[in-house]
Amino acid sequence: MKVFIGWRMAKAIGPDHKINLATSWQIVNDKALVNTIGWYCREFKDPMMVDPPAWFKSFCVCEILVQFPFFFVGAYAFFKGNCRWIRIPVLVYGTHVATTVIPIVSHILYHDFSTGQHPGPSTDKERYTLAAIYSPYFIIPMMMVLRMLFSSEFKRVTTMKGNKKTK
Amino acid sequence: MKVFIGWRMAKAIGPDHKINLATSWQIVNDKALVNTIGWYCREFKDPMMVDPPAWFKSFCVCEILVQFPFFFVGAYAFFKGNCRWIRIPVLVYGTHVATTVIPIVSHILYHDFSTGQHPGPSTDKERYTLAAIYSPYFIIPMMMVLRMLFSSEFKRVTTMKGNKKTK
Repeated sequence: MKVFIGWRMAKAIGPDHKINLATSWQIVNDKALVNTIGWYCREFKDPMMVDPPAWFKSFCVCEILVQFPFFFVGAYAFFKGNCRWIRIPVLVYGTHVATTVIPIVSHILYHDFSTGQHPGPSTDKERYTLAAIYSPYFIIPMMMVLRMLFSSEFKRVTTMKGNKKTK
Repeated sequence: MKVFIGWRMAKAIGPDHKINLATSWQIVNDKALVNTIGWYCREFKDPMMVDPPAWFKSFCVCEILVQFPFFFVGAYAFFKGNCRWIRIPVLVYGTHVATTVIPIVSHILYHDFSTGQHPGPSTDKERYTLAAIYSPYFIIPMMMVLRMLFSSEFKRVTTMKGNKKTK
């Protein structure tokens, strides 16, 4: 979990948002960044990153407005430890992030990219490879949700007298 | 909330899933239903309902696999009343449903439908009208989430002695 939070923090304050901004709104003009995007899009045939459709852009906005601020809250709670108040925020965050990945993976696996302006995955191998790149954003948030739901570390504690306490 | 749950239940067990099934997988052959879809798509220019893209289909699958079963759980809890255990499930459900509407509304407002096979919204009025049709699926789940987060009916009760109790 800590690795994921740290990774997402690095991603949030690092090149990822710049990539989203650069590709979606063309406001970043950085040669190395443009080269990186070009390499990624050629290598993994990800047309969403070079020419994001409107529905995909909405997730970039969510990432900046919702997920980015939460990274700091989540990172603080996870690194500090013993913060049971993080349970509900992580449940909401994890459900939100996991849900955003469902249409992306569905688009990668089933959309016909042959008519698009930019190269997209066409073979099963290409589709599965690109889906695998996005899959951690579904798997890890789901793991976080399941941990918050079922881990005794974050659930209510029932005392011997039958009173239920929360920290 | 009860009205929303009831409406979604009626929607789930009523024509909506049939519409999704009919349009997405062509397995329902009901003349009245096809006419209804045709009328809706002409009247409100909703190409997603007549020819859903892959990412939109994934939400139909979510609706059948996740949201449909939850309707009964939610309906039971809300109609019975005083069920504090519904808080976490509704938080997850509400966040999930609200998140699914974000890309749909973004697609409606910003996608260029002029190149599509089916008529889509082109003017601002048409886009706002279609977005308004989908907006209750964002607004009401968000209201449910906010209620679960902040309503004293579902939150922990702090006693005079400072002990935190949950029912």
